[in-house]
Amino acid sequence: MNQDPPDQADTLTVAAIAELVNGTVRGDGSVPIREVAPLHQALSDEIGVLFDRRYLKHLEKSRAGAVLLSSEFSDSVDPEMNCVIVDDARLALGTLVARLHPPEPAPAGVHPTAVIGRGVALGEEVFVGPYVVLEDGATVGDRTRLHAHVVVGREVAIGSDTVIHPHVVLYRSVVLGDRVVLHSGVRIGVDGFGYTSTPAGIEKIPHVGCCTIGDDVEIGANTCIDRGTIGVTSVGAGTKLDNLVQLGHNVDVGPNCLMAAQVGIGGSTQIGARTTWGGQSGAIDHMVVPEGVTVAGKAAITHDVEPGDVVAGFPARKLKDFRRAMAGLYRLDGLRKKVRKVEKAVAELQARAS
Amino acid sequence: MNQDPPDQADTLTVAAIAELVNGTVRGDGSVPIREVAPLHQALSDEIGVLFDRRYLKHLEKSRAGAVLLSSEFSDSVDPEMNCVIVDDARLALGTLVARLHPPEPAPAGVHPTAVIGRGVALGEEVFVGPYVVLEDGATVGDRTRLHAHVVVGREVAIGSDTVIHPHVVLYRSVVLGDRVVLHSGVRIGVDGFGYTSTPAGIEKIPHVGCCTIGDDVEIGANTCIDRGTIGVTSVGAGTKLDNLVQLGHNVDVGPNCLMAAQVGIGGSTQIGARTTWGGQSGAIDHMVVPEGVTVAGKAAITHDVEPGDVVAGFPARKLKDFRRAMAGLYRLDGLRKKVRKVEKAVAELQARAS
Amino acid sequence: MNQDPPDQADTLTVAAIAELVNGTVRGDGSVPIREVAPLHQALSDEIGVLFDRRYLKHLEKSRAGAVLLSSEFSDSVDPEMNCVIVDDARLALGTLVARLHPPEPAPAGVHPTAVIGRGVALGEEVFVGPYVVLEDGATVGDRTRLHAHVVVGREVAIGSDTVIHPHVVLYRSVVLGDRVVLHSGVRIGVDGFGYTSTPAGIEKIPHVGCCTIGDDVEIGANTCIDRGTIGVTSVGAGTKLDNLVQLGHNVDVGPNCLMAAQVGIGGSTQIGARTTWGGQSGAIDHMVVPEGVTVAGKAAITHDVEPGDVVAGFPARKLKDFRRAMAGLYRLDGLRKKVRKVEKAVAELQARAS
Repeated sequence: MNQDPPDQADTLTVAAIAELVNGTVRGDGSVPIREVAPLHQALSDEIGVLFDRRYLKHLEKSRAGAVLLSSEFSDSVDPEMNCVIVDDARLALGTLVARLHPPEPAPAGVHPTAVIGRGVALGEEVFVGPYVVLEDGATVGDRTRLHAHVVVGREVAIGSDTVIHPHVVLYRSVVLGDRVVLHSGVRIGVDGFGYTSTPAGIEKIPHVGCCTIGDDVEIGANTCIDRGTIGVTSVGAGTKLDNLVQLGHNVDVGPNCLMAAQVGIGGSTQIGARTTWGGQSGAIDHMVVPEGVTVAGKAAITHDVEPGDVVAGFPARKLKDFRRAMAGLYRLDGLRKKVRKVEKAVAELQARAS
Repeated sequence: MNQDPPDQADTLTVAAIAELVNGTVRGDGSVPIREVAPLHQALSDEIGVLFDRRYLKHLEKSRAGAVLLSSEFSDSVDPEMNCVIVDDARLALGTLVARLHPPEPAPAGVHPTAVIGRGVALGEEVFVGPYVVLEDGATVGDRTRLHAHVVVGREVAIGSDTVIHPHVVLYRSVVLGDRVVLHSGVRIGVDGFGYTSTPAGIEKIPHVGCCTIGDDVEIGANTCIDRGTIGVTSVGAGTKLDNLVQLGHNVDVGPNCLMAAQVGIGGSTQIGARTTWGGQSGAIDHMVVPEGVTVAGKAAITHDVEPGDVVAGFPARKLKDFRRAMAGLYRLDGLRKKVRKVEKAVAELQARAS
Repeated sequence: MNQDPPDQADTLTVAAIAELVNGTVRGDGSVPIREVAPLHQALSDEIGVLFDRRYLKHLEKSRAGAVLLSSEFSDSVDPEMNCVIVDDARLALGTLVARLHPPEPAPAGVHPTAVIGRGVALGEEVFVGPYVVLEDGATVGDRTRLHAHVVVGREVAIGSDTVIHPHVVLYRSVVLGDRVVLHSGVRIGVDGFGYTSTPAGIEKIPHVGCCTIGDDVEIGANTCIDRGTIGVTSVGAGTKLDNLVQLGHNVDVGPNCLMAAQVGIGGSTQIGARTTWGGQSGAIDHMVVPEGVTVAGKAAITHDVEPGDVVAGFPARKLKDFRRAMAGLYRLDGLRKKVRKVEKAVAELQARAS
């Protein structure tokens, strides 16, 4: 399970890295570095990175050939260790990664196995991979890439510079903006979970609405977004959804939100801009979640919250109330003992008084 | 990201809608309507809908050209607004949607790229889309549609009038009923999570059982259903599963159940008819959940419950007990203060008595 | 929805089964048995199995033609029932399943529709199914099977004797060990959920790390594993993940762990060997979970835990503390009543004393 030996051409010295990121060398600047890696994983031909207090614990055991670090941590690093010291190692990391991993040339062209329906309109320099299916009337903007096995339903409209990874399915009439990234297995425009119970059983409500995804949205693998029953399910510009997220029918997510993995949002819930959702959290249907709200992992919103609130638990309450409640919960035994003691003392006092 | 202008041919006047749904016009019956939409999304050429008290909040800001409403809300609507008033706007909505969105003609025929194994039997008017793979011995009933990239394992038996959306995978020997709908990315008949721990490590238990899905079942996108280890995993007729649901090996779900998104059911659990499961809820393995039980979102059943119970929390308790417990939890600080006050008073009484 | 009648050739008598598993017949050894099944599902031509106290409840209503049971339960079974009695029916079940379901001959060869990139290296007796896409530089070990529609990214390295079910996607540079099993819809090497908030909006951190999956790992359907941001996301040898699991970027799961369905692990969390995770449980990012920890269903680790701990709840606490806290929570009303009574008694004592 070993990977190929490093390509010498891709090696930089510690000194060359310092020059690249406008940093200072401490120790041996001639050490060759092949790759950048987390401190606890970096090997002798790799440079580790330190920009967060949480990584200090990995310093001692690190086998890194050098460390790229924010100056605030320079006293924490063994003086024997080869270092590149910068103001902000997080920013320097971006520069170094871009140098070590230049973007690959984008593929273009339509693979001969792609199935293209009637009235499909492809922009310039579009890539359509093997076994892609584009149904009738779909449109694809310039430089957009549809990777292997993607299925694009009838009348779907896809913007420019969008990347759709293998095995994504877009149901009919879905609208995607520009610079959208959809990871493998994303399903958009699925019929929502809408039924009416009748004496004869459960009857399906037809889903004739649609689904629009704004510019610069990224959606993680195997995430599912239902279409509107009537009207629209929408995701605002700049919002990022992680893997395995669920958005119900007619959900409206505002711009620049972050939803971690396995979040689930019930039908018709409206979510304001810049909200943040921890893993496995959610909201029931028909909620209105105002802008700037932060929802802790595993929490679920079931009642109104205020703009900017930080909430946790189920049903979700303000984080500080949740923390106090949890602390109290695990001290209940103590409270119960105190009450027992008081009861006994009161009984004695009563006996004495009578 | 704009969609095409409305096709004039698909426009109805408010008066024509009233005639269609057997309702009364209030205001201007000549306004042309292109589409039906939720109140808060409807535009000037669309008719909004009002059949639920929760939508009243959207009335004031609505830009709808007209409103289709249940008569109970007729006094809540601005007299200036164009209205179609009916007894039950939910039923009228169904009629209107059917008129505006007539079902498309079903595709039929076998795409030349489909890979058809030995002994595969296709019924009449079957549709087999591009890149579908049907392995040896699979059978497909009349008028069933297999959309692009569907993989049907060996000896799978699929009923009639069933719709399988793109990218569904059915493992070997799975049995599907009639009028089943499987959304994109559904996996049925997966090996269950069955292992035995041995001194040598974790050993896999072979999964040789099967999986049967009853008539009129609908299954949401990316939902996974394991096959039986031995015996059967089954989903009863009329049951609806939402997206990203997980059913373990040998689970038995009764008829006419509703499971919202991200529900997870542990292996060998038996679930009665007409149970309802909120999002992200579940049950551990080997439970017996009787008929008519309702499980709140995020709850998990870990002990026996009674038929018709409504349960919440983890471990799941009766909803009213859960609510009382949560209320108490967030009043613990107050209780603790009371106890402290009583302790002090008792200490004073004791001091005085001694 | 009926399956084919049993093939007479595959029928064994009860006596033959007893001989096979080294057991004793009680009742009629001549009864023909076609299949083995759970007690509550077994029919008259099937043998039910009883090796766990939890199945005793199914005995009475069972329609099984015979029962294969561990001797400890021999007194619990109706003397009229045909039995095969063994020391450990769980082991005997394995033997019987292997006899009734011999492994199928492995397919081999490359389907003519497979798209094979430049520099792809295939081992001996490899199977490449219909519509598989192998991108440039991918390598596949001996006897490995890639089923229909699998997409293998650039430079991916797959070991020997590995089985990849239909519709799996491996992003570029992923490394898989030997004897790995990936179920349908698995996504490995997805870009992680890493962004930085800037005044201009949310910016994506490029994900240039990789992802390695050890030998003998099995991964359930639709599970997603992110690649490292930098460095590696890894799953240790022998570990088994169930369906719909999420592992964030740079997660490190040790060997021989078990994760049930819908578990979610936050980025950079390190997980020790032989940990066990219940359904819908998880850990936040940057945790270090030591070896042998057991996490109950729906729990989430948010603080340090000790090796071998058994934890439950959110935030996760030791199971016995969680249970006591839950018991206390549902007895809060009683405690509140006691406090009220004591308050009253104290007030009376105070009145009397003044």
